[in-house]
Amino acid sequence: MDLKEKIRNIPDFPQKGILFRDITTLLKDPEAFGCVVDKFTQRYRDHHIDMVAGIESRGFILAAALAYQLGKGFIPVRKPGKLPAETISVEYALEYGTDRVEMHVDAVNSGDRVLLIDDLLATGGTMKAACDLVQRAGGLVAECSFMIELADLKGRKKIKDYNIFSMIVY
Amino acid sequence: MDLKEKIRNIPDFPQKGILFRDITTLLKDPEAFGCVVDKFTQRYRDHHIDMVAGIESRGFILAAALAYQLGKGFIPVRKPGKLPAETISVEYALEYGTDRVEMHVDAVNSGDRVLLIDDLLATGGTMKAACDLVQRAGGLVAECSFMIELADLKGRKKIKDYNIFSMIVY
Repeated sequence: MDLKEKIRNIPDFPQKGILFRDITTLLKDPEAFGCVVDKFTQRYRDHHIDMVAGIESRGFILAAALAYQLGKGFIPVRKPGKLPAETISVEYALEYGTDRVEMHVDAVNSGDRVLLIDDLLATGGTMKAACDLVQRAGGLVAECSFMIELADLKGRKKIKDYNIFSMIVY
Repeated sequence: MDLKEKIRNIPDFPQKGILFRDITTLLKDPEAFGCVVDKFTQRYRDHHIDMVAGIESRGFILAAALAYQLGKGFIPVRKPGKLPAETISVEYALEYGTDRVEMHVDAVNSGDRVLLIDDLLATGGTMKAACDLVQRAGGLVAECSFMIELADLKGRKKIKDYNIFSMIVY
């Protein structure tokens, strides 16, 4: 299946000059969504993975379906202020200003191998921060995994210390 | 399995006087997370469902795993400004002020039976707005389905025109 055909391209979103890769057209197509989850499942079925972490919000979609398929627990990596118990937090740079991601301190057991999932690799800032969270919580990053990679933005460089997988590359 | 044992109770979050039901402890437990997805799958396997819609953000987790299990497409119901293509939008009342949820106009085909999923039924405002979205897009609400229902808040009254299912009731 040509997954790129299922992704809608939307010019100038969220701002002028950006071509947004809209995955909602893929997600609503049962064969395409199933194909993506199956490919991730095949890739990780024989890996040593203890937990699957999804990055808010679109990362939750793929990570949750995959965690269930692999018979693993699911961890949310969230925007600030959303998690109710004790958290650890990592700040990262945006083009203008900074942003932050959080994880519960008890989300990961020491030595757990955590598979990190997001829908899209752009500049890599969010994923790098999520890797820092996993390590600070005592876990190991098994792999950083994406449905889509925007290769021009060179996000791989920012997470070059980790294993990286992307299913669809633009 | 006693799922309530897997849910963590956190007093005074997000504000004083509220006992927050934290599902992250359930989600990270593979048996508990698997049990929840299995129960939803068993309930809906023989229902006539065309699409599964998840409400941002925690609703995405259960809805995505379930959509995959049922072999259906996934639709995100999102907070304002997140969806890149043409949307429809429904405003609803909060205790102070209003909020809004959005869906792509083309998320649902006319006559599609849509299963709506969220993690928690509290006052029912968000789910009622999501039901309005589905109907305005031409779809039918197959059921409003929740992992947790806070019965004291009487959210059922707000969505009484629809089928309702909740897995865990407090």
